[in-house]
Amino acid sequence: MKDPIFLDNAATTRTDPEVVEEMKPWFDERYGSPATLYAMGAEAKQAIEEARQRLADLIGADVKEIYFTSGATEANNWAIKGTAEALASKGKHIITTNAEHHALLMPCRHLEKNGWEVTYLPVDGEGLVTPEAVADAIRDDTVLVTMAHGNHEIGTIQPIAAIGAVTRERGVTFHVNAAQTVGHVPVDVAELECDLLSLSAHKFYGPKGVGALWMRRGVRTTPLLHGGGQERKRRPGTHNVPGIVGLGKAAQLARNRMQSEAKKLVELRDYLIEGIEKGLDDVRLNGSRSERLPNNVNFSIEGIEGESIMLSLSYPTAEGSRPVYVSTGSACVSGTLEPSHILLALGVPVEMAHGSVRLTLSHENTREECDYVLETLFEVVERLRSMSPVYKRGASKCATGNDNDGCDCEAAG
Amino acid sequence: MKDPIFLDNAATTRTDPEVVEEMKPWFDERYGSPATLYAMGAEAKQAIEEARQRLADLIGADVKEIYFTSGATEANNWAIKGTAEALASKGKHIITTNAEHHALLMPCRHLEKNGWEVTYLPVDGEGLVTPEAVADAIRDDTVLVTMAHGNHEIGTIQPIAAIGAVTRERGVTFHVNAAQTVGHVPVDVAELECDLLSLSAHKFYGPKGVGALWMRRGVRTTPLLHGGGQERKRRPGTHNVPGIVGLGKAAQLARNRMQSEAKKLVELRDYLIEGIEKGLDDVRLNGSRSERLPNNVNFSIEGIEGESIMLSLSYPTAEGSRPVYVSTGSACVSGTLEPSHILLALGVPVEMAHGSVRLTLSHENTREECDYVLETLFEVVERLRSMSPVYKRGASKCATGNDNDGCDCEAAG
Repeated sequence: MKDPIFLDNAATTRTDPEVVEEMKPWFDERYGSPATLYAMGAEAKQAIEEARQRLADLIGADVKEIYFTSGATEANNWAIKGTAEALASKGKHIITTNAEHHALLMPCRHLEKNGWEVTYLPVDGEGLVTPEAVADAIRDDTVLVTMAHGNHEIGTIQPIAAIGAVTRERGVTFHVNAAQTVGHVPVDVAELECDLLSLSAHKFYGPKGVGALWMRRGVRTTPLLHGGGQERKRRPGTHNVPGIVGLGKAAQLARNRMQSEAKKLVELRDYLIEGIEKGLDDVRLNGSRSERLPNNVNFSIEGIEGESIMLSLSYPTAEGSRPVYVSTGSACVSGTLEPSHILLALGVPVEMAHGSVRLTLSHENTREECDYVLETLFEVVERLRSMSPVYKRGASKCATGNDNDGCDCEAAG
Repeated sequence: MKDPIFLDNAATTRTDPEVVEEMKPWFDERYGSPATLYAMGAEAKQAIEEARQRLADLIGADVKEIYFTSGATEANNWAIKGTAEALASKGKHIITTNAEHHALLMPCRHLEKNGWEVTYLPVDGEGLVTPEAVADAIRDDTVLVTMAHGNHEIGTIQPIAAIGAVTRERGVTFHVNAAQTVGHVPVDVAELECDLLSLSAHKFYGPKGVGALWMRRGVRTTPLLHGGGQERKRRPGTHNVPGIVGLGKAAQLARNRMQSEAKKLVELRDYLIEGIEKGLDDVRLNGSRSERLPNNVNFSIEGIEGESIMLSLSYPTAEGSRPVYVSTGSACVSGTLEPSHILLALGVPVEMAHGSVRLTLSHENTREECDYVLETLFEVVERLRSMSPVYKRGASKCATGNDNDGCDCEAAG
């Protein structure tokens, strides 16, 4: 089988070989715990503080406001449940959107079971919420607004800075899940006017199993884990030194090359979007066309299952074919038969939501790979549609000729 | 500076080069997320399932009862807070001991602030609790007993199986922190009769940042983290594939060599203990002499600070000396001036507790290194005592000639 083409970089990325190289000595040569005072511990402590500085530089943060975690899921849980717990006496109302990652949604649901009230703001057809909608939803007992910066599935980038201005004015803690944006687009915590920000190394060419929570000084958040005195007594457990060093190196690399990389990714992204819209009938781009992550392409393809497209692309049968790895919905829900709650939140009809495919680029992908992917995708869609009992060409247009998104005319079936 | 001698293996161990080798491809070659269905995801899923099997084989568990975490601290927090939350309607009483690691103690303290009641059973002079004491402490509203298998500081191994028989009979969930025993002494979850068991890879030659919670089927424990559907919907977040693969490899290595390794370690341990007792006056072995981790040596040394011993050993001034890395108290409290709560729990007088030093061996240490360490330790102690304003030779004996442990005769000062 030929080299695969990896277009699932919103799920995870290849750890950059430079990152791996930097991590290596911290496994079996310099393996001391940073909590100890002897030289082997001191050098480990220095290494994690250098990583902290590199990450702080990437997101415009004070180095003392960064806490290393096991990833964005832990950071999100900490931000949401920790803020809820710390501010419970002030109020028990939380605001989020109805198009969030499970790592935000599920902590909110858990709090709902324990006496908190959660408002799920509806997003518009592109996945956006407005600062006005957030302002209107804030009540006297609201203690937290939490949402993603860039949506992992549809790539829509929220107007975080404008929403931050609202939460700042109203004195409500604002948490942003920046797992999809850090290292890919400029993220500056001062500009975003948020109070808490989560991120994950493996989303921007760092290792899996390490992330961070940035916490503005003075923000009240109860720790999620209790134990030793690590991370200024807020996040216990022996530091994952190689992982943290890797996160720091990934942050340094991102800072240096993000600008040129984003330019290249936007070109490839738009090349794929235009290619698909020209090459296939009855498709719908999901997410915002303008406010969009540089590496995200997400389409609903009428009449076939996203799962079938994904499997056909990744397990090609023809001799000499390259497997193409894409996703349908987010990685966390792949393997289930549920339609994506995010596409449903946009108003995508259930049938179209089932037919979604997400292609997410890395800086290693090329124009030639995109050409190959387009050609292969067209063949796969043609073949699957020819076998589909439900697909009728042109069926996704109403009699009026408009796209049927959200319309309940029978042709959508 | 010559090669250091690392005798702080209870804090962390050198990741075995075989483990590092096995982890490598999962960073930048086979970097797919196990949550995805394409080949690169499927192979990652297979790798973590193989690791799960290797760990299950090491601890006599059913493979379906193992949940990967970011380490023992997370596993302990999950076990304690998750059980408390799941069983809150049944009762809010927890039993532990007064000689536990902060990763057990602090979750208990946190629960105390939120309406739970915790009994801290006193340990005896060797750090042991009896099954009878546990039985006597169990009340109608007791929902959890939690304690370490092997104490990280003094090396005492609790009679877990006998305590497990008590909790089983009384229908109380029993959590064991086995971070110091897994991979070092036989740990079989069936024999131990416990319900939850925490462990950490970096304590037995695996990587930092990964661990596991074993959870007997049917035990009720609310997840600590909420999010995606990973780990049978109980522990969300993209899997730390290289870390989990490393944990699995460390488990496999441990299973193969634990028996011969423990034999060697016991010899070296007893060689150090006997050497220190012969070579130094006014010292006290902390922890049990018989029920002891194979790699743990912990002494209180009258008249001087453990911190001074540790720093003198690790930053030697003489030309050609080898630094010796040891700890004073646990890694998590090193760097503070507080005497160890564990030594105080044994009844060690405050002054003696301040003078404690812990030497913990790995399978890579040699008899020659132990000779070097003994010689160096004797020199360091002699020098520090000669400068000590409080040390009087023979002062740790009472007038009766007995050790003064727990006695309040003035000579202890």
